[in-house]
Amino acid sequence: MIRAVDIIRSKRDGEPLPRAAIDAFVAGLADGSWADYQVSALLMAIVLRGMSADETAWLTDAMVRSGRRVDLSSLPGIKVGKHSTGGVGDKVSIVLAPLVAACGIVVPKMSGRGLGHTGGTLDKLEAIPGFRIALTLEEFVEILADVGCCLISQTKDIAPADKSLYALRDVTATIESIPLISASVMSKKIAEGSNALVLDVKCGSGAFMKTVDDARALARSLVAIGAANGVRTEAFITDMDTPLGCAVGNALEIAECIDVLRGRGPHDLESLVVRLASRMVRLGERASTDDEAERRVREALTSGAGLEKFAAMIRRQGGDAAIVDDPGRLPRAAHRREIVAASAGFVARLEAEAVGRASMLLGAGREKVTDPIDPGAGALLRKKRGDAVAAGEPIVELHYNDDRRLSEAVRLVESALAIEPAPPAGRALILDHVTS
Amino acid sequence: MIRAVDIIRSKRDGEPLPRAAIDAFVAGLADGSWADYQVSALLMAIVLRGMSADETAWLTDAMVRSGRRVDLSSLPGIKVGKHSTGGVGDKVSIVLAPLVAACGIVVPKMSGRGLGHTGGTLDKLEAIPGFRIALTLEEFVEILADVGCCLISQTKDIAPADKSLYALRDVTATIESIPLISASVMSKKIAEGSNALVLDVKCGSGAFMKTVDDARALARSLVAIGAANGVRTEAFITDMDTPLGCAVGNALEIAECIDVLRGRGPHDLESLVVRLASRMVRLGERASTDDEAERRVREALTSGAGLEKFAAMIRRQGGDAAIVDDPGRLPRAAHRREIVAASAGFVARLEAEAVGRASMLLGAGREKVTDPIDPGAGALLRKKRGDAVAAGEPIVELHYNDDRRLSEAVRLVESALAIEPAPPAGRALILDHVTS
Repeated sequence: MIRAVDIIRSKRDGEPLPRAAIDAFVAGLADGSWADYQVSALLMAIVLRGMSADETAWLTDAMVRSGRRVDLSSLPGIKVGKHSTGGVGDKVSIVLAPLVAACGIVVPKMSGRGLGHTGGTLDKLEAIPGFRIALTLEEFVEILADVGCCLISQTKDIAPADKSLYALRDVTATIESIPLISASVMSKKIAEGSNALVLDVKCGSGAFMKTVDDARALARSLVAIGAANGVRTEAFITDMDTPLGCAVGNALEIAECIDVLRGRGPHDLESLVVRLASRMVRLGERASTDDEAERRVREALTSGAGLEKFAAMIRRQGGDAAIVDDPGRLPRAAHRREIVAASAGFVARLEAEAVGRASMLLGAGREKVTDPIDPGAGALLRKKRGDAVAAGEPIVELHYNDDRRLSEAVRLVESALAIEPAPPAGRALILDHVTS
Repeated sequence: MIRAVDIIRSKRDGEPLPRAAIDAFVAGLADGSWADYQVSALLMAIVLRGMSADETAWLTDAMVRSGRRVDLSSLPGIKVGKHSTGGVGDKVSIVLAPLVAACGIVVPKMSGRGLGHTGGTLDKLEAIPGFRIALTLEEFVEILADVGCCLISQTKDIAPADKSLYALRDVTATIESIPLISASVMSKKIAEGSNALVLDVKCGSGAFMKTVDDARALARSLVAIGAANGVRTEAFITDMDTPLGCAVGNALEIAECIDVLRGRGPHDLESLVVRLASRMVRLGERASTDDEAERRVREALTSGAGLEKFAAMIRRQGGDAAIVDDPGRLPRAAHRREIVAASAGFVARLEAEAVGRASMLLGAGREKVTDPIDPGAGALLRKKRGDAVAAGEPIVELHYNDDRRLSEAVRLVESALAIEPAPPAGRALILDHVTS
């Protein structure tokens, strides 16, 4: 048995930890033989000294083994998962899962809640009246077998070591570490039962990773962990300087998901959905070229097969599937406030973080994990970055029931906004594609 | 109120902490508003990011203020303290305190116990039958007023924050940090009521600091903290590659202290005692030149005034002062084992750490803090480094009652010993003198 203090000392001194040390740490966390103060000392040493690819893969595996790994071997084909590191207006998973399922691939997906300026897939799904996200693993597997996709919350037995670690990292300033972030993300994705994974690493002012270099380092780490643990993993690095799509806020985003599945979503969102879905179809081996994969995905959009899968999934998860044909059934905020262009020109800047924060202040998100969510609140972008505007034309429409923090939200959006006389330089949405 | 997580994050990112943050940390430690896991995360960030001289001085001051600072203003003159970072055979404090008191200077001294291969002043004093080290602060001040010196254990209200921190550092691999070590040492010395301090920073195989550079960095940090907190502080860096003096082990060392106070101690020990005592006399302003200071110290040795002070202190602390005239009254081990020279030549190496560890194995020291001490056990060096030896001549004499670990102790001493045909290069005992 390796003593905790010796493991901490090794990492403090920059030595790589052997697999047995990492296993002892994760086991010690679970059985209480490591005190919290020893765990946090090691975490800080990891933040400042780093971990090699091997150490990170071993930590991930130990975290997977701290709980249950979902067995989807009874379902046909390659199961392909998806994960995003989180951004503003990022409803991609909700569109992707039914769309890729419509292409014949099983898409198991466990998601999280939102915090701060970024939303969470679970909060968005709960804007659908009746939708249940807390299913048992048995229900999860059953719905996957019947529908091909199912979106639920992580069950208690998925990577419990990650939950304990995260709670401690949050109060000890040890969140910001690529190895720790990677192990946390991948332990949950590997436990969820996928054989292959497509990751969307967000990059920019509205994302955790602010620079392409940082995003690329995270993407490489995630992809390497997948490879080391037998899950073929690819990552896209995509722009999060401005919100994705036009809707920010739970019910507003569900309505936009329906738009995309009807083939009339905003261009940026649709193009990202098609790109990620095509990779998932390739990884799921339902197409042998990129072109064929994209054709299948576009067909699932135009035929309505993706929308049908979405309705089927909602129905099986207890939700009101009629929203698919009548989005007016979704919760709606009572009040609106328009923010208009002060002068004519082009939208040069419309910052993701500020829009996300404004939306949170109106009730769409949480400042603290215990805050309640108002499913109808949020922001609708009437213009996107690069669009031409006339003076007085609406750019952002805030939706709210509670006006206590409205003026703060308005100020935030105004500060996030810049109109310039000339159109801004074009900006790619997909910045890189990292494979192992 | 600055949040713990924000303070930890600042230090993690290498930013200097403002005084208010350090005060909040030490207060949070005392009132429990900082969790242990936050304290240890900050400690690890300090170990890896360091602290400036200002931060270290503020931490020290906050730790002093976590408890009581002894007020010796009722006693005349400049009170001069002394501290050693610890080594093998280091009984200097026990000789110095009465010797300097005999020169008319009040010497308040709180000491610690030994652990591992290094001995502790308190354990040595307790080898004197009846000697009480656990006095109240009131008794301490009274004996200082009457005798001029008093050697006790730290009371509970001396720098309690240091005690909490140290317990946590011990199990989180956050001991090894010059700012944390310095703040720990100096908080206790400043709280003990001295106006000036002479420090002995040990350096070499038997010391915590292995190189002169490390020892000098620690010495500079200690001296700077003293200056910043109004306590004039000087540090000597002295060799601890080989034991100091000839006696290692508690009663053996007390007997050697008496030898030194009678003017017949081993040369290395006497010369260090005279040098440190002379600086204390200068800092206490009882001499205006170094020569005058040394004359006063030597006079206190030859006149027997130092020995008289020692006897007076022992008497006032409940001990058997007759040992001063009859060291045979000290506890003695029942058995001896000689380690002899395998060949003729010169003692080229006689390593402090191995001799200290051998002595500990025989019962003179502690492997764990709860281990009992055998006051009679230890090692007597019959030869010192550099001495000529004939084949078969005794070099080290082990004293023991319990022979369970005798063979291990013998092997250790043998491995610590090297005889060479030529005399080794001379080595200075005092390697540097650091002043502010």
